[in-house]
Amino acid sequence: MLDVKKIRQQFPIYDFNPDLVYLDTGASSLKPKVVIDVVDHYYSKLGVNVHRGVYGLSYEATDLYEAARTTVARFLNAKFEEIVFTRGTTASLNLVASSYQNILQAGDEIITSELEHHSSVLPWLQVSKKTGAKLVYVPLNEEGRITVEAFQSVLTDQTKVVALTYVSNVMGYITPIKEIIDLAHQKGAVVVVDAAQAAPHMKIDVTALNADFLAFSGHKILGPTGIGVLYGKKHLLNKMEPVEFGGDMVDQVELYDATWKDAPYRFEAGTPIISGAIGLGKAIEFIESIGFDDIHAHVHALHQYTLEKLKAIPGITVFNPTSETGIITFNVDFVHPHDAASIFDQNKVCLRAGHHCAQLITKWLKQLATLRATFYIYNDYADADRFIESVKEAVRFFQAF
Amino acid sequence: MLDVKKIRQQFPIYDFNPDLVYLDTGASSLKPKVVIDVVDHYYSKLGVNVHRGVYGLSYEATDLYEAARTTVARFLNAKFEEIVFTRGTTASLNLVASSYQNILQAGDEIITSELEHHSSVLPWLQVSKKTGAKLVYVPLNEEGRITVEAFQSVLTDQTKVVALTYVSNVMGYITPIKEIIDLAHQKGAVVVVDAAQAAPHMKIDVTALNADFLAFSGHKILGPTGIGVLYGKKHLLNKMEPVEFGGDMVDQVELYDATWKDAPYRFEAGTPIISGAIGLGKAIEFIESIGFDDIHAHVHALHQYTLEKLKAIPGITVFNPTSETGIITFNVDFVHPHDAASIFDQNKVCLRAGHHCAQLITKWLKQLATLRATFYIYNDYADADRFIESVKEAVRFFQAF
Repeated sequence: MLDVKKIRQQFPIYDFNPDLVYLDTGASSLKPKVVIDVVDHYYSKLGVNVHRGVYGLSYEATDLYEAARTTVARFLNAKFEEIVFTRGTTASLNLVASSYQNILQAGDEIITSELEHHSSVLPWLQVSKKTGAKLVYVPLNEEGRITVEAFQSVLTDQTKVVALTYVSNVMGYITPIKEIIDLAHQKGAVVVVDAAQAAPHMKIDVTALNADFLAFSGHKILGPTGIGVLYGKKHLLNKMEPVEFGGDMVDQVELYDATWKDAPYRFEAGTPIISGAIGLGKAIEFIESIGFDDIHAHVHALHQYTLEKLKAIPGITVFNPTSETGIITFNVDFVHPHDAASIFDQNKVCLRAGHHCAQLITKWLKQLATLRATFYIYNDYADADRFIESVKEAVRFFQAF
Repeated sequence: MLDVKKIRQQFPIYDFNPDLVYLDTGASSLKPKVVIDVVDHYYSKLGVNVHRGVYGLSYEATDLYEAARTTVARFLNAKFEEIVFTRGTTASLNLVASSYQNILQAGDEIITSELEHHSSVLPWLQVSKKTGAKLVYVPLNEEGRITVEAFQSVLTDQTKVVALTYVSNVMGYITPIKEIIDLAHQKGAVVVVDAAQAAPHMKIDVTALNADFLAFSGHKILGPTGIGVLYGKKHLLNKMEPVEFGGDMVDQVELYDATWKDAPYRFEAGTPIISGAIGLGKAIEFIESIGFDDIHAHVHALHQYTLEKLKAIPGITVFNPTSETGIITFNVDFVHPHDAASIFDQNKVCLRAGHHCAQLITKWLKQLATLRATFYIYNDYADADRFIESVKEAVRFFQAF
């Protein structure tokens, strides 16, 4: 187990909320002081634009911004010019889909799944409507998992795009993405990986995976809000039309024509999210300093501990008991999750109730909504116990009716 | 004049750089402590997501985020639901253009100008290419201004969109936008106003202007990077197709169909730029506490003072001596602006050299690039003097060759 006491000293929120039980990292992680400090440093000591000014402060801001890109590239084992900074995973995935709207045609096929977060399926649903390309869903197995066999059953010569999550934000399952990428490439399809839930939990090596595109967000990985990453293979990025047009992405502008820079800048129109990128770089360094092996072991231990206790409570349904990544999705039988959630809130146990921006898997589970608890490096067994006590209280409270 | 000493006490950068002469607010403003503090507060004491969690911290973050929207609505005299938070002016203007790509047809006309920043003209150039709608430029007068008469000369029954800047980022001219909006509406055209340079300098009342869309950025108005605003009339926004698809913007999701929320949320897919919006709200309050009358008087006085001294230096060409908003665009005759800029940098005078993301007006001026100095509330006469001394030094230095 990680030394949670030591870790919490690095997250200022615990100074103000020592009794906080934060189990909603799947929505947004808390922020360590080192990240808050570099954001503060940028605003307090620089605050100026990048790429534009011809003076020291601007050079310094530019260096910090581009150093963050280098950090992300190293983190993913990608090349510098393959890292595009965006507003978040949603913007990254939409960017790819928007560009492929100009590439796909009627008769082409796009494979996705009911496990997807809305940001991974809706952009392609829209592209499907615009182009006539067919949206195809991988049938999920009885646990709700994407399997290699099921993927093969829908892969065809018409498959041009595969858009799948690496880790489901509701079920916490890890998709066998490497095998899927290999199979997709045999058909000449590109694979777009939603790594929003994977990035905080596991080492991602885009080169080893041979992923074509991969996206994640800063705010789920200890970084700021409003910053995300799109990784794309260089030759694919440079074939794509930009989606936003403006300053810094353009080469030459004529009255009726313009040419674009190469990636990554062709996709970064306007003043970038400078403080966000700098903060994200520091968040990655923080996570690397702990290491994914220890993060995984820690989260896994908490998950198993909690799951055993949760399963022992009568009147609780856990939808993903075999989850690999510390996500527990459950319901108190016959109680609406939002009602149950009020009990958790009273006990300062923060979790999420709803469809988790993934209505399709919620429907697949035959639920209107679910409760979700997620664990991370700042959680400990005491958090798990407080959570379990709250679940018991919710069961007791609603059984009284 | 404003009490600059007192103002500077509120901008931490001057603690670390007491001899800074910052004349690049046109690219990005410096950030006051109150803005840095609310960003810090969000990350240190909340850090969680909005709209999603069913617990106290998330409610608190949501309240702060939506209170910022209320502040922006009041600032512009708009309705709450007419304020969309975006990544910046560039994203705002691209959002409108992307949506109008589905509305415009061959034969329609889009009016813009050579005064535009790339973010105000390139999205429409692209829409023009995609739809066959014709891009029409308002002829500029001899000073480089957009006049009502020139606008009338290109307005036709085919005009469907007018995309113009409120204040030019190179020339500093104020466009007669109210008269243009009234004329455009007589033809049934919508007007998209780029207010990135206007917002820091003048009261904008979208209701009085009757603007259809208006955009500005946080980072030019003392706020964070990565946050901007799109104002749009409610009935227009709700007719527009979303541009990004994902969480929080969707109503119902089926396997092959989905419905969207109303504005503003239909345009805010994914986790928003929470800290950015909160910081922007505080930046607006800071500016309002000073007041636009005093800001204008201060900037105007500095501009006039500097302009007189600059014009008296032989070998200097000022391209916009009649600018209303404190932007001075000039060149040292026969010296490339980037070479001249190195002299300014040595003297800690921060200004910008280049085409200022506005290649068309730079070409119109028959220049490859220009130097630009912009003034704001934290500048004083000593800054102006240091700037003038640096100009003289640049002239002397390059005359020696």
